[in-house]
Amino acid sequence: MKYFEDIRVGDTFPLGRHTFTADEIKSFARRFDPQHFHIDESAAGRSHFGGLIASGWHTAVVWMRLMVDYRRRMAESMRARGEPVAGVGPALGFRALKWLRPVYVGDTVDYRTEVIATRISDSRPRSGLLSYRSTGVNQNGEMVITFESTTFVERRGEPP
Amino acid sequence: MKYFEDIRVGDTFPLGRHTFTADEIKSFARRFDPQHFHIDESAAGRSHFGGLIASGWHTAVVWMRLMVDYRRRMAESMRARGEPVAGVGPALGFRALKWLRPVYVGDTVDYRTEVIATRISDSRPRSGLLSYRSTGVNQNGEMVITFESTTFVERRGEPP
Repeated sequence: MKYFEDIRVGDTFPLGRHTFTADEIKSFARRFDPQHFHIDESAAGRSHFGGLIASGWHTAVVWMRLMVDYRRRMAESMRARGEPVAGVGPALGFRALKWLRPVYVGDTVDYRTEVIATRISDSRPRSGLLSYRSTGVNQNGEMVITFESTTFVERRGEPP
Repeated sequence: MKYFEDIRVGDTFPLGRHTFTADEIKSFARRFDPQHFHIDESAAGRSHFGGLIASGWHTAVVWMRLMVDYRRRMAESMRARGEPVAGVGPALGFRALKWLRPVYVGDTVDYRTEVIATRISDSRPRSGLLSYRSTGVNQNGEMVITFESTTFVERRGEPP
C-alpha cells in the first residue's frame, strides 16, 4: 500500500472479478449460511429467487480476498521498483452494507474500491485513516453489493 | 420465526457460543482473508496482536450460522406445539459493524441479537421489517463485534 500522504480521495482500486460456481456457493453456505436457497438447487428453484444464489456474506468475503490479493500485488510491484511499502490495517468495521441483487450460479462480479475520505487518526497519530466505498457489479452492469469501510494506513513519518 | 405482530422491541435471541480453534481460524483465512496474523502463528506472534487472531469476517459469519440454527430450532419447537411459523428473510444488509477487540485462538464468543425497531415494509406491505442489534462477547465479558441489520418477516395477514 502507498503511504497515507500519497493517497487521494477518488483513488480507485480495481480488485478484479470473481465467478460464483454452484460448488463454492453450496460449500460456503453449508458451513456458514445453510438456508435452502443457498444449498439446494431444487428448493432454490421453488423459492422466490428462482434458483441457487450465493450467501450475501459469501459475496462480501470474496471482496476481502480480492482486496488482500490486490494489496499483495501492489506491494510486490512497489518493492520491485525499490519503493517503500506502507503498512495497512486493521480495519475497524464497515458501514451501510447493502445486498442490492441476488448473485446466481455463474454470475461474475467485478469488485472495485474507491477512497472517499482521508484523515489522520486521533487515537494513533502516526497512522492515517482511509474510508472506502466498495462495490460489486455483475456481468449485466447491475450492482449487487456496496459497503463502506475504514482502515488504518501508515504515514510517511515526521517531515525531515 | 414468530409473526411480525408477535415480536416486540427488546425481544432477545440468545444464539449460543462458539469457540474459535486455530485450525478453523486458519482454514477460513486461507480462503478468504490470508493476512499473516490470521494464517501463521509465528508471524502473528511477532505482529502487534501478539498471537493468531480470527478474521473479523469469520467472527461475523459465525453469527450468521448461529442465527440460521437458532431460527431452525425455534421453528421446530413452534411446529411441535402446532403453531404456524412465519417466513423470514432475506436480509437487506448491515450497518455499523464494528470489530472492537481481536478474537484469539481458544476464545469463546457468546452471540446475542436484540430487536431494536419494528415497522411495516413500504415496498412489501404484507411483510414487516425487523431491525436487530447483534453482539458477540468473549469469555472475559468484552464485546468483540457489534452490528445492526434489518430483515423481512412475514405478517399474520389481514385481520379477520
